[in-house]
Amino acid sequence: MSNKPQNIKGMRDHLPEAMILRQYIINTLIGVFERYGFEPLQTPIMEYAKTLEGKIGDDEKLIYHFETHGGDKVALRYDQTVPLARIVAQYQGQIVFPWRRYAIGQSYRGERPARGRYREFWQADVDIVGSASPIADAELIALLTDALSALGFSGFTTLLNHRQVLGGIARIAGLDDQAAAGIYRTIDRLDRVGPDGVREELLKSGIGAEETGRIMELVLLRGPAGDVLEELSGALADDERAQAALENLRAIVHHLRELGVSSDQYGIAPRLARGLSYYTGTVFESVIETPPMGALLGGGRYDELVGMFANQPIPTVGLAFGLERLYDLMEELALGPRSRTVSEVFVTLFNEDLAGASLSLARDLRAAGLKVATALEAHEKIGKQMRYADRKGIPFALVLGPDELARGEVVVKDLRSGEQRTIAREAVAAALRRM
Amino acid sequence: MSNKPQNIKGMRDHLPEAMILRQYIINTLIGVFERYGFEPLQTPIMEYAKTLEGKIGDDEKLIYHFETHGGDKVALRYDQTVPLARIVAQYQGQIVFPWRRYAIGQSYRGERPARGRYREFWQADVDIVGSASPIADAELIALLTDALSALGFSGFTTLLNHRQVLGGIARIAGLDDQAAAGIYRTIDRLDRVGPDGVREELLKSGIGAEETGRIMELVLLRGPAGDVLEELSGALADDERAQAALENLRAIVHHLRELGVSSDQYGIAPRLARGLSYYTGTVFESVIETPPMGALLGGGRYDELVGMFANQPIPTVGLAFGLERLYDLMEELALGPRSRTVSEVFVTLFNEDLAGASLSLARDLRAAGLKVATALEAHEKIGKQMRYADRKGIPFALVLGPDELARGEVVVKDLRSGEQRTIAREAVAAALRRM
Repeated sequence: MSNKPQNIKGMRDHLPEAMILRQYIINTLIGVFERYGFEPLQTPIMEYAKTLEGKIGDDEKLIYHFETHGGDKVALRYDQTVPLARIVAQYQGQIVFPWRRYAIGQSYRGERPARGRYREFWQADVDIVGSASPIADAELIALLTDALSALGFSGFTTLLNHRQVLGGIARIAGLDDQAAAGIYRTIDRLDRVGPDGVREELLKSGIGAEETGRIMELVLLRGPAGDVLEELSGALADDERAQAALENLRAIVHHLRELGVSSDQYGIAPRLARGLSYYTGTVFESVIETPPMGALLGGGRYDELVGMFANQPIPTVGLAFGLERLYDLMEELALGPRSRTVSEVFVTLFNEDLAGASLSLARDLRAAGLKVATALEAHEKIGKQMRYADRKGIPFALVLGPDELARGEVVVKDLRSGEQRTIAREAVAAALRRM
Repeated sequence: MSNKPQNIKGMRDHLPEAMILRQYIINTLIGVFERYGFEPLQTPIMEYAKTLEGKIGDDEKLIYHFETHGGDKVALRYDQTVPLARIVAQYQGQIVFPWRRYAIGQSYRGERPARGRYREFWQADVDIVGSASPIADAELIALLTDALSALGFSGFTTLLNHRQVLGGIARIAGLDDQAAAGIYRTIDRLDRVGPDGVREELLKSGIGAEETGRIMELVLLRGPAGDVLEELSGALADDERAQAALENLRAIVHHLRELGVSSDQYGIAPRLARGLSYYTGTVFESVIETPPMGALLGGGRYDELVGMFANQPIPTVGLAFGLERLYDLMEELALGPRSRTVSEVFVTLFNEDLAGASLSLARDLRAAGLKVATALEAHEKIGKQMRYADRKGIPFALVLGPDELARGEVVVKDLRSGEQRTIAREAVAAALRRM
């Protein structure tokens, strides 16, 4: 046993039951993405190493890279954003901007495997490339709200913030841009260490008691979006950049209403930082708060990154659905289909002589759109064939013996209930579709 | 320009127009696979190197392999069959056999890039694992016939042969199993060098004139399956293994008829060798002969390979649809959808004040299932917004100005014909769906 090959640690095999749920997630997402006019893009898993290097700081060491026989230095992508930046530069003349594109595929990071952390992981990215309009941000939040609802999630909220709201909070506490980065990281840990933990860390980092108090007060603001925006506006009245950010958030909230996103599905959360590494404007994150499930997904506006190879800023807002995270959550919450097989019907073979009649029946049911597996060994007893179908989890098994054949009928057995009934052959497809 | 990053040579980017066709191919294939009861499987792109090494002879040098930071020797898969063998060994207790599984994904070979040859290529594999029944072979040929038809191919034929038919032909020409391998390779070149070329090569390899004559006569047999099988049966009357093979082919042909595959969609072709490297029984290949397009796909029975890690023979029959090949052919033959965008409708924004009404219209159309992109800049002139939609290739653009708003109407412009008409707002979704 022990010398049998295994999958690489941290990279998952997806057997049919898992794949059926994963395909359901992907198809549901594609359905919503396309209803919002997003177009599919796919790039190779592999890029020249120099395209990927130098963009993710400390995480650089997680990149899988190697040299090919031909001497090319290559690497496996660790996200789908740097490849998007390459595409935008390489095919600039062929793409009409603003461009709504989605990309669904694997990325790779040589992480230490842990619960919920994989070395091969699928992401579904949606980005609007080439627009600074708040309508673009609102479209994405409407899209993610529709997508999560379509997957069956309920009770989630999308937290919305803006980099320059956090910047404003840092500035009124007397911090310059450099020092501000440190407090974002601290604030980002609010869910883990709680308000007292954050307060303590801020004090420890040398920020005065009064400034810490003001930061905490603003960062912990909650309530209807309009109220929170008003409070922030008052507190950050002297900060021009923060005022512009709040104006931007007001416009987004306005458009969310027009796009049909209900006000209990989102909120302004000045504490939301999302690392902020490459975000330049809005940041958002969808969370389930009761029971506390953490973040479902996140995104934001990053106006610098996508243009890096095109040598010009290209305003972009985007988000990524982490398929591994969605899958694990949907398993936990029992959302989406649970099935060991795609087959709806199993056609048995009565004996060698009658196998042909059963195969023709299978053909007709398939032509009617049903998903049909057939038995393969006509000499096996019907009971054994039935047990096989039952072990596969196929709901219905059909028998076409000499009597049924003579009468133009088929026996349909419901393998879950054990019930069986006889149906006219030409009515079987319609009957099975109803069941 | 020249220092802009590029895709790796031999690995393709798929921009939306290409992706729309590729997704159409994949969805069509999945539809057919599942109607035949095949279940999805997905494995990582990467395997431990020792799992992949030593299985493909000379092609071994094409494998991308490297060592991770953690010291694991890993490689990118070059097909989806060796991973299937690993899965079968690793999850033996969880899989109910016979197992119909499909797998759609990328594989990698460091080939010298050439027309139609890619270093990253997608394949859609279907295999029935754990059955030696000729019904399994017939089901796969019926499936590929349905799949190619569903994709829009016509005039294709599936050539069918058996390893032991070729073996029998070699044996009656006086060759042992060792020497036979050489003539398979020669016969495989029939399409390229023609009958005279093959005849010459056989003579040159030391096979006598009479034996060469007998080989050529049998190898070139054509006609209805029943006739060819009968002729072969007479010619190979003394060869037990060939007789068993012919019996197997007869059973498959019999089941093909029962499964509704018409006799002009397949034929017995004793010349078909398909390298034969790991095939142990049937081999088949679908070709378009007029105009000569070469092979669309191929497959066969390989009873040794899938069990290699489970240390037991596991009879398997399978085939692979090469997505790159299908895509290139469908482009050439203008099959499947040709579209630069998924969007069916573009909603313009009349001005800042009326943007909300347009966004609400977009929301309603999406809820009705339409694929809708919206303009993002309300201050842009409607003419400019229309030109954008037209450049994207979106067929319809909607305008909701103050007059339309007052009358509860929407202007619908067909961007291909230039025609426009006014439709009641509540009737727009239904009207667009009809168009």
